[in-house]
Amino acid sequence: MSAHAQTKATWIWYPGDYEIWLSNKMQNRRTDRGSFLPPLWKLDSHYVLVDFHKDFELAAPEEALIAIEGQYNVRIDGKAVSGYPKSVTLPSGKHRINIKIYNQGNVPALFVKSAHVVSDSSWQATFEDKEWIDASGKTSDLSATVYVPAGSWNFNESTVLPSAFHLPTEPMKAVSKEKKAHSIMVDFGKETFGYVKLHDVKGKGHITLYYGESPEEARATETCELLDRIEVSNQQNADITLEGSRAFRYVNIQYDDNVSVDDVSMLYEYSPVEQRGSFRCSDDQINKIWDIAAYTLHLNTREFFIDGIKRDRWVWSGDAAQSYLMNYYLYFDSPTVKRTITALRGKDPVTSHTNTIMDYTFYWFISIYDYYQHTGDKAFIRQTYPRMQTMMNYCLGRRDKDGLMEGLPGDWVFIDWADGLSKKGEVSFEQLLFCRSLESMALCANLMHDGKNAAMYNTLAKSLKAKLFSYYWNPQKHAFVHSRINGKPTANVTRYANMFAIFFNYLTDAQKQGVKKYVLLNDNIQKITTPYMQFYELEALCAMNEQSYVLQRMKDYWGGMLNLGATTFWEEYNPAVKGTDIYAMYGRPFGKSLCHAWGASPIYLLGKYYLGVKPTAPGYQQYTIEPQLGGLQWMEGIVPTPNGNIKVHCSGRQIQVSADSGTGTLRFKSKTQPVCNEATIKSAANGFYELTIQKGKSYTVNYTAA
Amino acid sequence: MSAHAQTKATWIWYPGDYEIWLSNKMQNRRTDRGSFLPPLWKLDSHYVLVDFHKDFELAAPEEALIAIEGQYNVRIDGKAVSGYPKSVTLPSGKHRINIKIYNQGNVPALFVKSAHVVSDSSWQATFEDKEWIDASGKTSDLSATVYVPAGSWNFNESTVLPSAFHLPTEPMKAVSKEKKAHSIMVDFGKETFGYVKLHDVKGKGHITLYYGESPEEARATETCELLDRIEVSNQQNADITLEGSRAFRYVNIQYDDNVSVDDVSMLYEYSPVEQRGSFRCSDDQINKIWDIAAYTLHLNTREFFIDGIKRDRWVWSGDAAQSYLMNYYLYFDSPTVKRTITALRGKDPVTSHTNTIMDYTFYWFISIYDYYQHTGDKAFIRQTYPRMQTMMNYCLGRRDKDGLMEGLPGDWVFIDWADGLSKKGEVSFEQLLFCRSLESMALCANLMHDGKNAAMYNTLAKSLKAKLFSYYWNPQKHAFVHSRINGKPTANVTRYANMFAIFFNYLTDAQKQGVKKYVLLNDNIQKITTPYMQFYELEALCAMNEQSYVLQRMKDYWGGMLNLGATTFWEEYNPAVKGTDIYAMYGRPFGKSLCHAWGASPIYLLGKYYLGVKPTAPGYQQYTIEPQLGGLQWMEGIVPTPNGNIKVHCSGRQIQVSADSGTGTLRFKSKTQPVCNEATIKSAANGFYELTIQKGKSYTVNYTAA
Repeated sequence: MSAHAQTKATWIWYPGDYEIWLSNKMQNRRTDRGSFLPPLWKLDSHYVLVDFHKDFELAAPEEALIAIEGQYNVRIDGKAVSGYPKSVTLPSGKHRINIKIYNQGNVPALFVKSAHVVSDSSWQATFEDKEWIDASGKTSDLSATVYVPAGSWNFNESTVLPSAFHLPTEPMKAVSKEKKAHSIMVDFGKETFGYVKLHDVKGKGHITLYYGESPEEARATETCELLDRIEVSNQQNADITLEGSRAFRYVNIQYDDNVSVDDVSMLYEYSPVEQRGSFRCSDDQINKIWDIAAYTLHLNTREFFIDGIKRDRWVWSGDAAQSYLMNYYLYFDSPTVKRTITALRGKDPVTSHTNTIMDYTFYWFISIYDYYQHTGDKAFIRQTYPRMQTMMNYCLGRRDKDGLMEGLPGDWVFIDWADGLSKKGEVSFEQLLFCRSLESMALCANLMHDGKNAAMYNTLAKSLKAKLFSYYWNPQKHAFVHSRINGKPTANVTRYANMFAIFFNYLTDAQKQGVKKYVLLNDNIQKITTPYMQFYELEALCAMNEQSYVLQRMKDYWGGMLNLGATTFWEEYNPAVKGTDIYAMYGRPFGKSLCHAWGASPIYLLGKYYLGVKPTAPGYQQYTIEPQLGGLQWMEGIVPTPNGNIKVHCSGRQIQVSADSGTGTLRFKSKTQPVCNEATIKSAANGFYELTIQKGKSYTVNYTAA
Repeated sequence: MSAHAQTKATWIWYPGDYEIWLSNKMQNRRTDRGSFLPPLWKLDSHYVLVDFHKDFELAAPEEALIAIEGQYNVRIDGKAVSGYPKSVTLPSGKHRINIKIYNQGNVPALFVKSAHVVSDSSWQATFEDKEWIDASGKTSDLSATVYVPAGSWNFNESTVLPSAFHLPTEPMKAVSKEKKAHSIMVDFGKETFGYVKLHDVKGKGHITLYYGESPEEARATETCELLDRIEVSNQQNADITLEGSRAFRYVNIQYDDNVSVDDVSMLYEYSPVEQRGSFRCSDDQINKIWDIAAYTLHLNTREFFIDGIKRDRWVWSGDAAQSYLMNYYLYFDSPTVKRTITALRGKDPVTSHTNTIMDYTFYWFISIYDYYQHTGDKAFIRQTYPRMQTMMNYCLGRRDKDGLMEGLPGDWVFIDWADGLSKKGEVSFEQLLFCRSLESMALCANLMHDGKNAAMYNTLAKSLKAKLFSYYWNPQKHAFVHSRINGKPTANVTRYANMFAIFFNYLTDAQKQGVKKYVLLNDNIQKITTPYMQFYELEALCAMNEQSYVLQRMKDYWGGMLNLGATTFWEEYNPAVKGTDIYAMYGRPFGKSLCHAWGASPIYLLGKYYLGVKPTAPGYQQYTIEPQLGGLQWMEGIVPTPNGNIKVHCSGRQIQVSADSGTGTLRFKSKTQPVCNEATIKSAANGFYELTIQKGKSYTVNYTAA
């Protein structure tokens, strides 16, 4: 009998191909004032010709349903079935079924279902046969064909074609409407995303929709970022749903004399990911921040994790890396992470950095081992490791004579949006990320039992780390300097390398304290004005137990956006900027995105550093819970894991925890001797108490917060 | 004014992309007894997102028509035009127009036409922008974007879409028809290709078409290679044209009781290449051979040069390399050569040899410099050279410790269809082709002014040539031995390396004579039974002035096929095989292709070695004409060149030549003092006379054939 008799049939394809195809589709939806605005980097494609096979053993013959996307053949033990069969009889005994599919426009995909044989990841796929025949028809003995397990998602019905995928929508009404002679201005009450629907449109002429994340933008017909123009010619009243999805809170609809529009609503489009994580605490502003952050992340969690819903609607590696981390505390939706990582990498040959950005390449490497640490999903590492190697080869080929990465022509050294930030020479931040990338490669190589390359990557990482300290560490400044130019360290200190070095754990405790005092808490060092880098700055501070300080920073910064009426968090926020200038960026009055994934970092910070939950072995087989109230009176929340949830409630007097799987360690400090009836409490180093959390049990600890 | 004001507008795309896309389409048309049978190797795809631009200068504004295949934007000086414009106003002065196109299923392509600005190869294309902005919107100063001249073919109308391309067809009638109760057997008189049309079909039921290149095959309903089954349900009489194109001379149509078919015809599908070359001589059998060869090549000259029209209908590099050479003497159709070379290479990364065959990789390299020698088309070398380099890197990476190419797992060492031919170890033939490939790389590198790599390839070629002689040359046998196994030369001598070494000019005159006597004219050396390798064997003999012997071989071998009723030349022909066994191959009774491109080599041999015309400088700027009657009383013919034709008439008493371009040298031997009124005849080495042929003039030489 087939070993997979119990699994569900699902549409399968060459692993990674559907993700690349779908990301092409998604990333080519951006418009800029009515003009198509596609990505600037290379887009790859699926393999157009793929052979799939499965070895099976049956006690009795059975009929298999076959559904295919593409032109195909079906072979049983190498013998072709005539034509394009919709079903095939699988014979009893041991046999192999092959299905080979050609599809230029969509991804070659198949669905097979009989009583015991179903299409799933136990099928093998290849894009290249390496077998041949001699003049007598005899096949070569020696095959070098590389087979990989087929990829799939959740297309579990033969009639639900992967190529027809679209996110679900639901109707939403505006909360207010201002109607004039030839215009309607509607407000949907908060930032949203989808397709505007015009009701009872009549007449002949033009209708123009000006979208706004702010009312100012919707009214700025000459400078708003998004608009749509349509032409109507309706004898009778009819509803019109716009073809393109857009981000907006406000829509300013203007139409010709001979046209009338009665009402405006929308189809809200969203990803049906389940919000499994939660957070509540004694501070209502923090609760509001968490809710708005969750909504912000949800809007930016689509087919993939994108940067922002107004623009660019693209998959940017640095942005996505943060979304993965937030996701682990909000949805724990692994498919969206895998899709995004796969789409970002595309295919060989590597012709540029990820999104053309050097740092974004490094985040990509780091995020993969990170994904493994959270999920324990080794199959994904196996699928991705070959493309990690070719990507790393690209990086290694671009090192300078000192073994460092400098921006060569075509390399965007991004780091952050910050005025006057130097990208010249060998930037310390890039070397730090490069070093962490090499460490991630070594970890993945070990997982793949590729000891030789693991050793190579480890050696490279060690050597680079030594250079980091010898080239960039300035003991007088208690910090890494920003860069080397012409082989000489500059005097400039920025926050980036220094804050990452803390949570990468590259520094001694004394060095960490120095960085905290002389860099992170030093107002003379250029401040960060994007939520993007605040994510890491606040993480570094949390990693040094500055939860109380960080809580206030969150209230000031994210609270500052709320005070300005934000219904989602922004791409950039500088409290010093006033008036409508707050909407400007890139030299455009409404260039700034008001709903940017990287604005949602409180989800991550509150889950990881306040509830204090994080995995310490792959897939949360082991984890720690180290609650830190940071000045809150109480907090509670749920952290999702691959198999169930971890629940935490914490006040100054009591901690309650429970978990569905894995083995955890609850760590806390207490001024009094803590009490727990469900487990033994042990004293640990640095004044901590610890107890072990077994799955399926609830624990209550009475203590006195230190 | 634009420098290209006078050129014609044509559809353009990223160079090579249309060729790859079209070859996918063509190569996925093969069926095997009604089942789809796609190629076994990897198929690549076009870039799905491409940016095109053109810098222009206009005295006055003008309106440009815009036609696009895909989703696109139009930018003038970086500023986007709204929506998807069908025309755009080009402003006066110096400006840049950009058009960026996304198309997943078809090739992104564009057509622009105004009075002075038209889409053509002066436009630049890229699949990857390497530019970016800072937070103020300022673009990076340093661009690393690689632009290449756009590709095109002959789509010169805005309404004729490249994606809709198909070869022309014309109706053809059968020459005989045998009608029975539920069947019709038709004979089209000769091998042909196209779509069968059933006339006045009525009723409800199944119709099956069994195709045959021979009547035996059409009647062998259980073993014929090609068949189609259709289901009809016609109330009234209707004509049905089959969807799939097939190769056949005979069609055996069988239908159900309730179905009637009145008549059968076909739509003959063909490539509209112009037959510019010709050959006529005093021997009618040779004339017939030339005509049938020309028809054979024409049937196999389609969107690309394919191997055979029954099967595989694929682009095989070794087969195509011969078609290119024949083409230079029949059509001189460069686009078909370029398309085929480009399709064969596909895209990076290189994951296997061309068509998985080691020798086919080498033919690919060699054919490119050869193309340049015939056409002088440096632009194509420029387009192809980067992919030649990555292909050669693949080869260099697969050398063994002695620097030789041995078949590794996944490498098909093909050489020829020949019983018991050893592919083990390091085969001398492969090293010979590898050496010639390195020489071709060096020549192309020099053309590209890539002196460093030219030197590298030359050094590698030199070293390999030295090894060829030290490892394989056996002075006792006057030949290269077939292979080395475990570092030791075998005693086996085959024809392959030895005959190629002659026309590669790797041998001394004495060695050549030895090879002729002890290998080529030695019946104890395994004989060649494919026209494929006869091509090269006869070329080697012609290169040693054995035209008389070769003429008889042609008459025996190709004449032998004619005697068996061939209307096109075959994939393989062994005069020793009798009866219906002549149709068998690959263990299948009708496996053999009776219309195979490589069967058409007399075209090449008669043009190059009897009329004696060949280029001696790129693009026929210089050429020689060295007529050799080889026992014929007279011969005449036309050899096409890039700019016009070369005409030759030759008898034992008189030679007449003329040429439209270039400077030629007419060489011949004469027993008497030759006379020419139009030019001075000089004596040359080895008893030759020579005179210089200027373009546009006719020359008559009276002489006495030696």
